[in-house]
Parts: sequence; structure tokens; C-alpha cells
Amino acid sequence: MKHVTFGLVAVATVAGLIAFVVPAPSHAEGEPAPFVTEIPHGYRDWQWISSAHEAGSLNSLGAVLGNDVAIKAYREGKLPFPDGTVLAALHYRYVPSDENNKVFGQAQSFVPGAPTNIQFMVKDSTKYAATGGWGFGHFADGKHGDAAFMKSCFPCHEKARATDLVFTRYAP
Amino acid sequence: MKHVTFGLVAVATVAGLIAFVVPAPSHAEGEPAPFVTEIPHGYRDWQWISSAHEAGSLNSLGAVLGNDVAIKAYREGKLPFPDGTVLAALHYRYVPSDENNKVFGQAQSFVPGAPTNIQFMVKDSTKYAATGGWGFGHFADGKHGDAAFMKSCFPCHEKARATDLVFTRYAP
Repeated sequence: MKHVTFGLVAVATVAGLIAFVVPAPSHAEGEPAPFVTEIPHGYRDWQWISSAHEAGSLNSLGAVLGNDVAIKAYREGKLPFPDGTVLAALHYRYVPSDENNKVFGQAQSFVPGAPTNIQFMVKDSTKYAATGGWGFGHFADGKHGDAAFMKSCFPCHEKARATDLVFTRYAP
Repeated sequence: MKHVTFGLVAVATVAGLIAFVVPAPSHAEGEPAPFVTEIPHGYRDWQWISSAHEAGSLNSLGAVLGNDVAIKAYREGKLPFPDGTVLAALHYRYVPSDENNKVFGQAQSFVPGAPTNIQFMVKDSTKYAATGGWGFGHFADGKHGDAAFMKSCFPCHEKARATDLVFTRYAP
């Protein structure tokens, strides 16, 4: 079904008839919602939004970075985030730092260990209309999460509706 | 004593006799070592190096950011850090996120709370020769730490001699 819709749009474009074609829905009923399948370019150079420690089974320490559109929106307190916003959550194992603790003389320092995954939220209110305007991405060892796994992102983020599905606050 | 030395250098410079003057030590015996007394401009826009949780009495969650010189040196694995390197450690209280925990259904999420202090390391091997080439800065509520407090930075950082007095590693 999705295939057919895409095909029609392609043919219409080639024929120069695009204006007469009803836009294809970004997410057909019963089809899996689209998600982010490519790592956004240059994310490691983006500015820092905040850090977080997720305890429990995640046992993760990391940071959320944002592209220029994201940083501007955060600083201006602009909600919803505009199209073009991209957020990157870099996760690492939460591990004690033996070398720091030796200096401090006590077990107090926890730092990022091995990278575990990188997650993205890409705002495109057309492409990702079915999931609140956000495309979700999850990459571990360079491979994206499968469709079944990616289905879990939106229902959880949807609970943060008051902040446009984004949990992370900007650290001043 | 320090005053007199500086005065001599100034006179010598004006008279064009600088080549004949022995350079003034950056840190006269018995004088407190210089430290960073002004918040480096634009530090909140710098790139992210890593995050850390310091437990115990510090109870802090934060991030270390670096200026362009710092980021380049880290990525190239360049030690010692070149003059011009500036590192910024942004510290906040380590607090549970009630709103995140409500979504997760368990107490697992810890985020930055109120800002506590910002610390800087500025590399200038001449100005800060007495403290390993690093000027240390500590700011809380916009005010810098006093000389007595600032004396505690170097002896501790000196223990990280293998990494040019810097504890923080670059998170990939």
C-alpha cells in the first residue's frame, strides 16, 4: 500500500502533474510509522543541552546535544520545536572512574564508559506527522533499531506532550 | 615585590631594552599563584567533551565543554594541551527528575538541578607557569573563588600529570 502511494507520487512528479495529486499521507493506516534510519551528519559537533544519568537497567550516563535550530528554540523557550530541530542523545555506560577516585581518596566519580547507543529526534511535521512531528532514531554499533523496537519511542515520548514530546530541559 | 618586578619590565619595554632584561617570573616566591578571575566569554556555546557525576559531598552532575583549541587537541590526542586551550566544567546539583520517573514508572532518572558553580582551566604556559601552565577558575553566583580557595586546585590536578593535569577524557 505504502509502496503504491510512493509510486504514484513519483509518476505524477515526472509527469509534472504534482499539483493535481492529493499529497500522500506520511503514514498509512496500519503501516509502521517512519523513523530515522541515518545518523544525522556532524552531531558530535553540536552544542550541549544537558546531561543525564539513567540508573536501573539502563545504567547510562550521557549528554543531549542539539543542532543550531534546537539550541535557538531552547534558549528562546519556543514550543513546539520548529521543523529542522534535531536532538542527539549520546549514551555511555555509567562507570566509576578509578583514576579520579584514587585522587579524591574515595569512590565518588562516575564517568562515561563504553558507548551504548545514540538516539535522535528529528522534527519534521510532515514526514513524521504520525508520531507527533518527530522522527525517532536509535543507533547501536552504527545500526539503526528495527521497526518493532522503534515503535516503543513515540508512546513514551508522547507523555511529555507539555514540552513537545521532549524530556530534556536546557541546563543554563 | 611582584609589583616592583612588573614595573621594571614595563620600563624596560618602553625603553626598548627588553632583550637585556631577565624575564620576570610569573609567580614570585611566597606570592599566591595567579588564577582565572573573569569568566571566559561564550563558554556556554562550546562543544561537549564529556559528562560526569560526582557523588558524595559534591553531589554534582555536569558537563565539561571546550573551546575550539581544546576540542582539536582532544580529538588529535595532543598532549600537553596547547596555549589557548580553555576547558569549562559546568556543575549542577544532581537531582532526581520527578517528571521523567513518572513516565518510566520508577526512580531512575537523574538530571541537573540548580547550578552550583562553573570551573575553568585556561592554558597559558607563561602566565600560569607556577601551576603547570594552567590557570584555574571557580565561579559561584558570578563571583570567583578567593585566593585561599584557589590554592587547592593545582595540588589536586597535579596528580593527573600523565594527562597534563586534566581529569576529563573525551567521550567519543
